[in-house]
Amino acid sequence: MSDDAPEGLLEAFWAYEKALMSDDLETLDALFADRPDTLRGDAAGLLVGHETISRFRGSRGGAPRRTIAEVHVRVVDPTHALVVAVTAPERGGRGQQTQLWERTEVGWQVTAAHVAVPAPAVDTRVWRAVGDPLVRPGSGPLSGESVAVKDLFAVAGQPVGAGNPTWAAHAPVESSHAWAVHALLGAGASVRGIARTDEFAYSLAGTNAHFGTPPNPRAPGRISGGSSSGSASAVALGHATVGLGTDTGGSIRVPAAYQGLYGMRPTHGSVPTAGLMPLAPSFDTVGWMTRDASLLRRVGAVLLPNAAPRPLRDVVVVPELMALASPDVRVAIETFLEDGPRGAGWGGDGGTLVEESWDLPAEWPEVFRVHQAAQAWQSHGWWLRTRLDSLGADVRSRFEMAAEIDHDAAVQAADDAARARDAVRRLVGDRVVVLPSAPTVAPELGADLGEVRAATLRLTCVAGLGGLPAVSVPLTTADGLPCGVCLVGPPRRDLDLLDLVAGPLRS
Amino acid sequence: MSDDAPEGLLEAFWAYEKALMSDDLETLDALFADRPDTLRGDAAGLLVGHETISRFRGSRGGAPRRTIAEVHVRVVDPTHALVVAVTAPERGGRGQQTQLWERTEVGWQVTAAHVAVPAPAVDTRVWRAVGDPLVRPGSGPLSGESVAVKDLFAVAGQPVGAGNPTWAAHAPVESSHAWAVHALLGAGASVRGIARTDEFAYSLAGTNAHFGTPPNPRAPGRISGGSSSGSASAVALGHATVGLGTDTGGSIRVPAAYQGLYGMRPTHGSVPTAGLMPLAPSFDTVGWMTRDASLLRRVGAVLLPNAAPRPLRDVVVVPELMALASPDVRVAIETFLEDGPRGAGWGGDGGTLVEESWDLPAEWPEVFRVHQAAQAWQSHGWWLRTRLDSLGADVRSRFEMAAEIDHDAAVQAADDAARARDAVRRLVGDRVVVLPSAPTVAPELGADLGEVRAATLRLTCVAGLGGLPAVSVPLTTADGLPCGVCLVGPPRRDLDLLDLVAGPLRS
Repeated sequence: MSDDAPEGLLEAFWAYEKALMSDDLETLDALFADRPDTLRGDAAGLLVGHETISRFRGSRGGAPRRTIAEVHVRVVDPTHALVVAVTAPERGGRGQQTQLWERTEVGWQVTAAHVAVPAPAVDTRVWRAVGDPLVRPGSGPLSGESVAVKDLFAVAGQPVGAGNPTWAAHAPVESSHAWAVHALLGAGASVRGIARTDEFAYSLAGTNAHFGTPPNPRAPGRISGGSSSGSASAVALGHATVGLGTDTGGSIRVPAAYQGLYGMRPTHGSVPTAGLMPLAPSFDTVGWMTRDASLLRRVGAVLLPNAAPRPLRDVVVVPELMALASPDVRVAIETFLEDGPRGAGWGGDGGTLVEESWDLPAEWPEVFRVHQAAQAWQSHGWWLRTRLDSLGADVRSRFEMAAEIDHDAAVQAADDAARARDAVRRLVGDRVVVLPSAPTVAPELGADLGEVRAATLRLTCVAGLGGLPAVSVPLTTADGLPCGVCLVGPPRRDLDLLDLVAGPLRS
Repeated sequence: MSDDAPEGLLEAFWAYEKALMSDDLETLDALFADRPDTLRGDAAGLLVGHETISRFRGSRGGAPRRTIAEVHVRVVDPTHALVVAVTAPERGGRGQQTQLWERTEVGWQVTAAHVAVPAPAVDTRVWRAVGDPLVRPGSGPLSGESVAVKDLFAVAGQPVGAGNPTWAAHAPVESSHAWAVHALLGAGASVRGIARTDEFAYSLAGTNAHFGTPPNPRAPGRISGGSSSGSASAVALGHATVGLGTDTGGSIRVPAAYQGLYGMRPTHGSVPTAGLMPLAPSFDTVGWMTRDASLLRRVGAVLLPNAAPRPLRDVVVVPELMALASPDVRVAIETFLEDGPRGAGWGGDGGTLVEESWDLPAEWPEVFRVHQAAQAWQSHGWWLRTRLDSLGADVRSRFEMAAEIDHDAAVQAADDAARARDAVRRLVGDRVVVLPSAPTVAPELGADLGEVRAATLRLTCVAGLGGLPAVSVPLTTADGLPCGVCLVGPPRRDLDLLDLVAGPLRS
């Protein structure tokens, strides 16, 4: 290898740089080899194939301004050379770009590129504020753990931002912590930071219109899931060990499933909501996500009311619910059912695993949707009434729908929801229902999420209407993508449900 | 190119991975081509040459634990292949590693590698806490600017950490902002975050023993300079536009010079120190750093007392001070002297640029050192008395020295310092003295910094003893490394000094 660049290589290198700075997509496409195995990787993931790379370029709206600080050419053979450049982004710091060039019949082209830019001070898709730590803990059983707090909980010294910049600009600075934050700090877990949420938590997608979609490291190019999106990504990225969030219609279960995390939605009312901004109080719960089952259990011991253990033995699978999942997710859940919650079957002490057909009322998702919407408007209509244009399109459309629900419809939905609650609880009884946490793996960025939401609510509304505890357990599809299976238990049996998934807590 | 890996390549790839995980330096060295042009780059910079790469490996104490999630092989020719791997670090997220392998006479070896790991939640070498923003601003002339606040200033809702974890663990949460923080917020600049400092600001190096040395993006592998180290790196990295710090013995001027920033140390007493933890109050000043002269001036308009402009015309260069700089820095300053502060000479309106020999008292640096130390012990001895072992070795040795200064020596140093102040002010008169901001470019990480500090204080003590305003202007050596030239002005002529460097403020 030598440093003498072969004819035309540096010209091509600089032509590429010029095209990058002017976002000249045609030239950029022409300078990358038009092959299915061409590579381009950056912090967001590795893209394979010219078409995928071209699509990425078309959607990003230009590269950050930069100059080239150093260029190192390593000639491999007469038709190949590696060009390593140190880049100097205009906003500061240094980056690196490694390109393998090949002299093809149309001239020098990149066949593989690896691009690294300096990290920003903070990934604002994931965090609103973060520290080492942001809030110091006491000491206790969670010492050493760090919490990503969804930006709906009061953290003393900070406003509650609720995922909406207009709200955040004027929200008062809180003088004390929300109950759950206080409890975790008291147990020794530090607050790592305040994590992004979908606006007012009224989404299951994580695609915040103002701050962008937090990355899904297990499934690059796919959405994070929401609304506890920042908390989930923070845990998946290893930025925090506990993601504190909320689950009204699936906002813990869905991001947990999409990102390969354990997620806990407790029995409605079992974790105090003091200091938590409401969305739909009759469904809102304080939940959390972790990377391992044991920590999920240990957080439960801190946040949930103590109770004598009563092992949950009987498990029911409902074909009508399983049928709502895509085949890849269903296959993963079937394997889970064979292996049992901790890989050792469902226990030999008299437990049962039965399939049971449920005649699920078709109107349940709609009952959930309307009762949630009516309460959401009660919670936020006073402020949003004149500020709907501060919302991203999808959340705005839901609040606009919510604003249209009249008093009679709201009362009717509340009645229907109360009846549905009883019905769900009767169906579940003293058993654990196994169902998909979400119908599919995480949809790709840019997918139509309206249908995804409707399909998801058909599954998540079961625990939502029932006010029941639900644990999402991470699974992997045959394609290697994360998905989740949900275990819904009887009311106030949260710790028993956690024991089923994690084993009893050892102290 | 094809995906079929040639014989032995994947074995070598996995042998490398195994060696990396066991920190088997011998095998790692053997698997990298022993050549002066072998490359290895990561977020800390690009290393060139087998020896440099080997030295880096020996000093880092092992790579973070990871597994390999994907491997893509692109065969270039019979003796070369590119191997791109997606890595899954144990702590979360995804990384990428691109390696060019060559089949040499000793087998497959890496000739170039580019390693990217997922960014942490926050670079704890630079920041203690950071947000989007961490503290919301008012509106004013600095709207849109963001401030990195040195961890010595009170920020409401946070403790003052002072660069020492033992102190930080118990420091009270502040209920109001320091004067300078309040003034910047009121002028529209947000607080981006709280930036690292050397412990109790008692260093010029930035090599905090607890949190590591913040990166110096303009000079990778070299120290950041301190004690306003985090603020300087934050600005150099583009994380913030204003680095708020302090300058007692050079803590603004030195990091500014090392990192290619503008730095302002005001006249002693001209910016209120309310809410600032002291080091040596008779020398402590509130200063700031920016990437461009215009913003340096605009921050001055907010923090400094207003005064009618009186242009500074007469400039003096002191050979005895210039002689304290290394040749590369001297050459850069000589070019600066030819070009003038804004590249257009020193003004044609009757100004003068003269060389003037000064008979600088040899004891001045010692007077500064002892008076600073005595005050530093007065400020912190009450707490450090029983906690010296909480300090890193270098800062500890200085505080131990400070503890030994007896009352008579302290009184003598104060007297000497008062006399030196008068003498400096007489020498400077109504003129601007041009001298090196620091004797050298940023020393390499691991260099002996004791001598560096002594040499630096011989330059910086001039403005320090005089209580005079000083602006550090960034220059570049022939080697492309940042260094700084310092313009020291008459007392309370801070704005005139800024005008000289930045041009008058346009409103």
